[in-house]
Formats: sequence, C-alpha cells, structure tokens
Amino acid sequence: MTYRALDENTILDYVRGSDRLREHFSDLSALECEEVGDGNLNLVFIIRNRNDSSESLVVKQALPYLRVAGDSWPLTRERMRFEAQALMLYNELTPGLAPQVYLYDDEMSLVAMEHLSQHEVMRKPLVARKRFPRFADQISTFLANVLFKTSDLYLSGVDKKALQATYINPHLCKIQEDFVFTNPYMESPENNWNPEIDPEVQAVRSNTALKLAIAELKEKYMTQGQALIHSDLHTGSIMVNAEDTRVIDPEFSFFGPMGYDVGALLSNLVLNFGSHYAHTPDAAEREAYQSYLIDLMRDIWQQFEAKFERLWVENNCGEQVPNAYWRYPGGEEAFAAYRKRYLRQLLQDTAGLGACESLRRMMGIVSVWDISSIQDLKQRAVAERFVIRVSSRWIMERASFSSIEDMLAILREEATAVSA
Amino acid sequence: MTYRALDENTILDYVRGSDRLREHFSDLSALECEEVGDGNLNLVFIIRNRNDSSESLVVKQALPYLRVAGDSWPLTRERMRFEAQALMLYNELTPGLAPQVYLYDDEMSLVAMEHLSQHEVMRKPLVARKRFPRFADQISTFLANVLFKTSDLYLSGVDKKALQATYINPHLCKIQEDFVFTNPYMESPENNWNPEIDPEVQAVRSNTALKLAIAELKEKYMTQGQALIHSDLHTGSIMVNAEDTRVIDPEFSFFGPMGYDVGALLSNLVLNFGSHYAHTPDAAEREAYQSYLIDLMRDIWQQFEAKFERLWVENNCGEQVPNAYWRYPGGEEAFAAYRKRYLRQLLQDTAGLGACESLRRMMGIVSVWDISSIQDLKQRAVAERFVIRVSSRWIMERASFSSIEDMLAILREEATAVSA
Repeated sequence: MTYRALDENTILDYVRGSDRLREHFSDLSALECEEVGDGNLNLVFIIRNRNDSSESLVVKQALPYLRVAGDSWPLTRERMRFEAQALMLYNELTPGLAPQVYLYDDEMSLVAMEHLSQHEVMRKPLVARKRFPRFADQISTFLANVLFKTSDLYLSGVDKKALQATYINPHLCKIQEDFVFTNPYMESPENNWNPEIDPEVQAVRSNTALKLAIAELKEKYMTQGQALIHSDLHTGSIMVNAEDTRVIDPEFSFFGPMGYDVGALLSNLVLNFGSHYAHTPDAAEREAYQSYLIDLMRDIWQQFEAKFERLWVENNCGEQVPNAYWRYPGGEEAFAAYRKRYLRQLLQDTAGLGACESLRRMMGIVSVWDISSIQDLKQRAVAERFVIRVSSRWIMERASFSSIEDMLAILREEATAVSA
Repeated sequence: MTYRALDENTILDYVRGSDRLREHFSDLSALECEEVGDGNLNLVFIIRNRNDSSESLVVKQALPYLRVAGDSWPLTRERMRFEAQALMLYNELTPGLAPQVYLYDDEMSLVAMEHLSQHEVMRKPLVARKRFPRFADQISTFLANVLFKTSDLYLSGVDKKALQATYINPHLCKIQEDFVFTNPYMESPENNWNPEIDPEVQAVRSNTALKLAIAELKEKYMTQGQALIHSDLHTGSIMVNAEDTRVIDPEFSFFGPMGYDVGALLSNLVLNFGSHYAHTPDAAEREAYQSYLIDLMRDIWQQFEAKFERLWVENNCGEQVPNAYWRYPGGEEAFAAYRKRYLRQLLQDTAGLGACESLRRMMGIVSVWDISSIQDLKQRAVAERFVIRVSSRWIMERASFSSIEDMLAILREEATAVSA
C-alpha cells in the first residue's frame, strides 16, 4: 500500500482490513477511534470496541514532516522502522517492559501496538510526588538487558555489526547532536530560556572548560557504537503504574554509548528534583520527596550495575573479551577488575552524557514539563539554577566518580545550597 | 557475470572483453599474464603488452575461502568491495597516494588497477636499510586527509553515517579483533612464537595490568567509529620508491579509531628497528639506521599532526563542533585547546593501538618478515624482547604521553638497554 496519512475514518478501514489487527476485536462494527497525537511528528490513534473497553490497540503513524513553531521540515518516515524494530527487540530481550507490537507496516510507516490503558506517562505523576515502588527494579532490568545483550560483551562481532547496520539512524541522531550537545550552548535562534537565568545561561555559553567537556561527550555520542541505546529515555518515554513499567517511543534508537540512556533517566530525575522547589512549597513535603528521588536514583544505578554485571558473568559469550583470555593464574580477579573498570567508565559516561540532557533543557529548544509548568519565572529560576549547577558539576567532575554516591553527593550539596 | 575464479587464460579473455580494461592496451593480441598472488586469499594477475612494457595493469580477485596452514575456511568475497571503494575514495580525498582503480566488478569480486611496476613493498627495503626521503611527507598527507575527511570533523553527521554504512565489514574486523587484540595474549592453537622468548610470552599472557589495557584498546577498536581506517596499514601495505608512496590492500577498511592506522605504521617501524639487532651487526651502521627510523617516526607524527590540524582549522565544516560553538570571547583559544586535546588523545590511541599490532607479531598467528627472516633464534630473541618491551610500555604508559618525544624516549631507553 502506498503511503498516505490516515485519519479517524480511514484508520478504521485499515484495522478492519488487517488480519493481524482485526483479531484483537470481537465486533468489527463497534470500532471507534480517537486521535491523541500532538500532531507534530506522528499520528497516534486509539482504536476501541465501544462495547468492550478491554478490546483496544494503538496505531502510531509517522508523518513525513515535523511541525514545530509554525515551521515544517521534511523528516524521514524511516524513524517508525527504528521504533518498531526496537520495541520488538525489547520484548525479545527483556519481556514485558515495552508495549507488545502487533504489526509493523513499512510502506505506511505505521506500527500497531498494545494500548497501555492502565499506565500513565511518568513525568506528570513525578511532579505530583507519586511513588513507584517497582520502578527501580523494572527499569534497571530493562537497561541491563537491552544494553548488555546488544553489546560486544554478549554478541559475536559479526552478529553485533549486523544488528548495528539495521540501526543506522542519521536523521534522528542529528536532532540529538544539535539539540542536546551543540546549539543550547551557543547562539542559535531556536534556543529558549527563562530571562531570569540569562546570566547563568551566558556563563555556560562562555565557559570554555565546560564546553570542551561537552564537545568530548558529543564525540562519544557520535562515534561510540557500544550498544543499542534508546537515545531519548527521559521520563516522558516511560509509562508506569504501581505494578508495571513500559518503555515507549524508541525512534531515536541507534548504536551509541550506553551511558546516554542511564544518564538521560537519572538526569530527568534531577530535573524533577529541581522542579519541586516550585511545585512543592512545603519544605518537609518537598524534602521527603526529594529524598525519595535520591533513593530512587541510587536504586536504579545500583540495581542496574548489579544486574549488568551478573548478566556479564553468566553470559560472557560476546566478542569483547572471551573467557579464555582470563584463563591464567589471577585471571579470575583480572576479569573482575575489568568489569569494575568498565562499569566505572559507564558511571562516568552516565554522569556526563546524562547531564548534557538536563543542561540543554535549561537553555535549548525544548524544556521539560516538570520545569516549564512552573508559571512564576523567579520560582522557575530557582529550579533551573539548581539543575545547571548539578549538571555542570556532573560533567566537569565525572572523571573522579567511582560510585553513584559521588553523583548524589553533588545533588545533596547543591540542594543544601538552595535551602541556605 | 556469475562469480568464477579466473586463471591465467580466462583473465586475458576477461580483459579483452572489458571496454574499460582493453583501452589500456594498444595490441590485445600481445597480452600476457603472470599470477603473483600468494594463493591464500586472492588471485593477483599482472597483465602486460609483451611488446610494450609501459602497458600493464593488475587484476586482483578475491577467492571465496582462506587457505592457511592446510585449512580452508569460507571468507566473504565482499572484502574486494571494501578494497575497491576505499582505493577509489583515497584517490578522491588525497590524489596520487593509492593505485588508480580502473574497474570494480562486484559479481566477480574483482578489481583492476594501476600496475605499480616502479614501486616496491616497503618492508624489505627497510630491512636493507634503504631511506625514503619523501615518505614521511607523503604518508602523513595520506593519513591526515583520509582520516580527517571521513570523520565528523569534516563531514555532516548524515553524510558520515551514510558513508559508514557502506563500510560495515564484520568478517575482516573479526580477523583483527581475534589476531591483534585477543588470541596472542592467551592460549590459542594458532599462536606461534620463538621458544627463546617463551618466558617473556608467558609473562605477557599473565600480566593483568597489560591485559586490562589491551582489553580496553580492543573495545575502542570495536566500538569507536571515528573515521574510515585502513586497518592493516603495516609496511607490507605500502609501496614506495624514491619519489612516490602508494597505500594498497585496504580490504580491512571500516570506521574505527584513527590511532589504529597511525599506530600500525609507527609500530611496524619499531618492528623494523628491532630487527636490525640481527640484520645489521655493525654497531655504527645499525645505530645510524635506527636513528634514521627515529627521525622518520618523529617526522611522520609531527607532519601528520600539523596537516591534520591545518585541515581542521581550514575546513571545520563537520558535525562535530561547528565554528559557531566557539563564537564567544575566548572561543578561538577554546577551539585551539579542543584541537590540542583531540590530537593528544589521538597520540595516546596511536601508541596503544599501534603497540597491540607490534606486540601480537611476537606471539600470535603471524610474525612479520623483518623479524621472521632472522634465522638465528637467539639473535631473533634480542629483537623480539626489544619489541615486547617497547610495545608493553607504549600500552601501559600511553596516558602520560603528550608528544611523540614521549614515545621515542621509550624507544631510545629500551635501545640503550639492549646495547648495555
């Protein structure tokens, strides 16, 4: 079928005409549809049986252009292929932590998937101080499995490169290269920041040491094909409820540095932490939740690190360093030292790459809802200055980090400075 | 045409039947052929006009298997594509430093190219203490142009990734991954070493600090897609004469760390340096040539570094860090600092990655002729111990290197230790 953008009517015909979609419904005449996309990039349809709400699915279709701020520029529809194949791979590597994919239609740039009607996107409930007791366990399982099992630690060199070849994603990479690692830190017309923090923004843009570090982190992002990364794993790309976690929207996927995914997640928790200076005026309430966020970050990293290392010890079948390389007196300790060194480097990458994601949100093209929803600009500036300080320090001091506590200590020091 | 291996008769019909090949000859009835390949991997035919020796060309055809030590294993013929497209790209990026390509036939896994009848492979003349006055200038031009112009410093992100996608070369990468970075440093049946240096070889294989460093360098080789590297740039892949330098045999090409190419070249000069302990018994003669080799290494690096940096300053048009990023008071100095840092890292990669190439030649599947041609095993051991010491120190001490002099100082110290 030649590509055409669907609408609320044609989508129903599409579903009825597909063997693999209509089997999800007991009554095809009772289908109804709601378009819930933001209309900028993708169409998102929820298809339901109006007589049985348990029967539903989601269809996501790529538009061939991107609409932002009145402008429209062409964008390759191929991104839906990256999304579909990544979701399918997630379900294979770590079942149950991404929506099920029912159908991928390459010509139509369309993916049909499980409707997560009982989940909510994580960003807003974090602003509402909700807690998710199973989240650290589940997201660390997701990260450890996907990152480890797509790396040279687990795959043969030939298999890894074959998989990597199916994730050459230059156009979406460029969005992150520009808007995470470059433009926010220089003059660029799309940049947008709170006038209250103009001095801090200008200071970042002329801070040579910081800019050199960001340029090095950008090089890592652009050249280090370490594992399949989601590459946009902020709290808006995660759906949660009390029992369950699902990762969505992996259209930016490519083979990049592992630390970018772990880092984007942690730094979005830093953004949320900062936002409570405005969202949660009651100091005791705020500190309790911020303290929960610190525990959450620690849990995520520590569980991730432990699971990643356990996977490695139990499945050291990749090209990177075969078991036979460590087969000599002292070799077992050497392998343990290698894992420790690898994970320490990953922690430092997590800090540096993740902090670029939070720093750019303060002065680039897009903020995050946690912060942008703060109406009072002076209050908002308190949160933003905090994020700028923590992010800058994570970037500049990362080479000294050997434990997640080093990252959290900076968070606490800067929190103390805000309260003082 | 369906693939079939050519022979000395069928190759002549092939040449006569090709519009683009027969134009190189004034008399098609006077063609003669010589097969000069080693028969392990590729067929190499020289086609000449027997009445006019100025008319000649070379045809190289990939065999679908690799014959080593009596065994035969299937090997993808696709490697000839990497060779052909790399040679063509070299001629585009830095004209005159690789053989001209006349024809590439994908179906036949065959490339026809300029016959370099006035050049010799560099390895043997270096053993004969020949000097090549234009070599440092020419090879540094080659390295600077190819590495810079295929990197994110010069190309847009989209163009670089599109180019990178045409050099996904898993099977030949695996040969280097195994035989440069892994098997030589562990028990592996194909390893081969001089029994005289068995204690040194066993010491390397149980040296945890060294093996951790090699594992990290292997990870860099496997994951860092920095630029199009030749990936087998030893002195057997370079043809020279007094005026001219040509790089050949880029079938291992892929997007890897730049330092591997610069390093393979320098470390093969270290191998040659060591070999003169046996090949050149006269101390004055030996020291004079070793001193020439040190000057050559210095020249290669310094000219490479200067040309690379000049290209960068004059053509900073890539994705990596746009000029606008450095447009602020102090930005010019910041850009200079970034270049310095980048080139320092490249020097350290050169030392570490290159030293893996020389170290493995002492204890892996293949030696180099410089060393293997030393008949007396005790004499050979002198050269080998020297190479092991220099290589190990380049690997272990590389993080402290800020100038080529740091690498050469180690060479001189170890040379002094041999003479003492």
